[in-house]
Amino acid sequence: MRAHNFSAGPAGLPLEALEQARDELLDFEGTGMSILEQSHRDAPYAAVHAEVQSLIRELTGAPESHDVLLLQGGASLQFAMVPMNFLRRGKSADYLMTGVWSDKALVEAQLVGNARIAGSTLRADGRYTSIPRTEQISLDPSAAYVHLTSNNTVFGTQWHRYPDTGKVPLVADFSSDFLSRPVDVSRFKLIYAGAQKNLGPAGLTIVLVDREWAREGRQDIPTMLRYRTHSEADSLYNTPPTLSIYLTRNVLRWLKAQGGTAAMAARNADKAQRLYAALEGCGDFYRVPVGREDRSVMNVVFTLGDASLEKPFLIGARAARLIGLKGHRLAGGMRASLYNAVSPADVDALVDYVKDFARRNG
Amino acid sequence: MRAHNFSAGPAGLPLEALEQARDELLDFEGTGMSILEQSHRDAPYAAVHAEVQSLIRELTGAPESHDVLLLQGGASLQFAMVPMNFLRRGKSADYLMTGVWSDKALVEAQLVGNARIAGSTLRADGRYTSIPRTEQISLDPSAAYVHLTSNNTVFGTQWHRYPDTGKVPLVADFSSDFLSRPVDVSRFKLIYAGAQKNLGPAGLTIVLVDREWAREGRQDIPTMLRYRTHSEADSLYNTPPTLSIYLTRNVLRWLKAQGGTAAMAARNADKAQRLYAALEGCGDFYRVPVGREDRSVMNVVFTLGDASLEKPFLIGARAARLIGLKGHRLAGGMRASLYNAVSPADVDALVDYVKDFARRNG
Repeated sequence: MRAHNFSAGPAGLPLEALEQARDELLDFEGTGMSILEQSHRDAPYAAVHAEVQSLIRELTGAPESHDVLLLQGGASLQFAMVPMNFLRRGKSADYLMTGVWSDKALVEAQLVGNARIAGSTLRADGRYTSIPRTEQISLDPSAAYVHLTSNNTVFGTQWHRYPDTGKVPLVADFSSDFLSRPVDVSRFKLIYAGAQKNLGPAGLTIVLVDREWAREGRQDIPTMLRYRTHSEADSLYNTPPTLSIYLTRNVLRWLKAQGGTAAMAARNADKAQRLYAALEGCGDFYRVPVGREDRSVMNVVFTLGDASLEKPFLIGARAARLIGLKGHRLAGGMRASLYNAVSPADVDALVDYVKDFARRNG
Repeated sequence: MRAHNFSAGPAGLPLEALEQARDELLDFEGTGMSILEQSHRDAPYAAVHAEVQSLIRELTGAPESHDVLLLQGGASLQFAMVPMNFLRRGKSADYLMTGVWSDKALVEAQLVGNARIAGSTLRADGRYTSIPRTEQISLDPSAAYVHLTSNNTVFGTQWHRYPDTGKVPLVADFSSDFLSRPVDVSRFKLIYAGAQKNLGPAGLTIVLVDREWAREGRQDIPTMLRYRTHSEADSLYNTPPTLSIYLTRNVLRWLKAQGGTAAMAARNADKAQRLYAALEGCGDFYRVPVGREDRSVMNVVFTLGDASLEKPFLIGARAARLIGLKGHRLAGGMRASLYNAVSPADVDALVDYVKDFARRNG
């Protein structure tokens, strides 16, 4: 029986995508070889590479001005590559702080050059439970770029309207909400996303970058760390993570068949709304620290009013095959991640469990 | 019918490793989730991670002084990470040049600091067909390190005895012969290898590094590019490429069951010897540009005396399901890669074809 997987990432993928991978793992399209045994320069893999780039462009609506890059190293390497490419001496970059991942991005920028906090919702207790309001943001009009984290897996907040940065390039980490809803990519000079939440296996990083901007990046940094290298080489400068790209193809095909990001947005909003409503419908038994307008549709963070019930909650959940509900250690409590592949039926099972646990222990 | 895969990489893997992956792709050990859907912090994946590190240590005989790191980015990122960590201002690094990949490694070092050529077999025509002799090597005793490429996939040469660098740390790219034969790891401060030849899918890079040396590396470079980060975090600083690591586990289990590197070395030497002998047994029909003592056991490079027969050779090979024999564009001609997973029966098929083609066209 398949588990209900609420892990923050690596996370569950659509069963159809895995089944296709299983069925053709030993022999890809009659070649007598697995997809992972194919040369990255030969036709069978080249078609997969191109299809993934094309599906990402189609599903995101990324304009022709942007390249779709297939890289490695996760968001953590992007934290460094963005400033290495674009934060030149004499310039400064603006960072909008909404949690653990934006903290890490800022640290890497400060290793490279000048980076400042242009807005932050850090609380005295070290947590972040909101997204900066317009009046909490003070942008430097001469900044090299503005960086934000679209969705915050640890504390369960999400930008629902992106700030207007005028002529300053906007860069965003979309690792945990990429392709979960329609986004106007043309507003961003660069978007990056680790694949292991909404998209595929860990080990693949998607970058959408304005081609002209990528090519203006610094050229005196290591070849592998220049966006220009990958833009010019169509992400084949060195051997790409072919198996992960292939699995991502299967997920993208599924996503398209589901109706794309508009359909996903509706389904994801409904999933989250039902879970938040169930939590709030149990009186004080559960608590949701994030205010309604900043709540993440991807990661529902909550605590139990009586902290001594957390362990029994997790044990009972596991017995019901509800996996991955323990919160991040910095946030405490619980976290249910509701990425694209989490089905309405998975959420039904969790909602039932949440209500039942409260009834039995309230 | 399974193809005979002689690709330079990504390359064929043992069928048993792929079959196990297929059989448990939807449900890893009764968890109701694929291995690639497991959190990298949870027990099912943690056991895989530890087993891969332990098998690599056992199979290489790496001493306890060395860490086994599981990274991303391929050898191409290692070309940059090595000098970023260890090539400090005021120091110089020595590079031994034997082909395309050592050229690329040198370029990245020179972007970071001072790096010199300490030995090279570059010929006037731009090719490399030998390994430097002791008298062709001039080492700087104060160098930060010496770098070499153990096996050269493009030109088909291989170091069969590594140079003595005294107290200067020796660093080597083992991407194309890792675990193909016994190597005394204690002689190297750092070894790196992309997985996609002898080990697993593209997207995983193995690093064996002396722990003390790793921790002496520069700390003012991006966190992800410090060996220290990955040494201290046991390669879990960020999400590792879990699916690729899992597949590598299957390959390592197979390798151990075959008898480890000693058995592989004997099998690989026999495979290569038979192919080289077949090529040389056809008079002038084929030519092997590399002298006997420097020939690679992994990549057999050869040309046809009559270049107009190259295309028919490749077409006939493909018809016989002999895949991946076209040489690298810089070397021309043919290349048969005989990594661990290429079976003696695969080589039989190629030897038969080589002889038959010469008989029919000689």
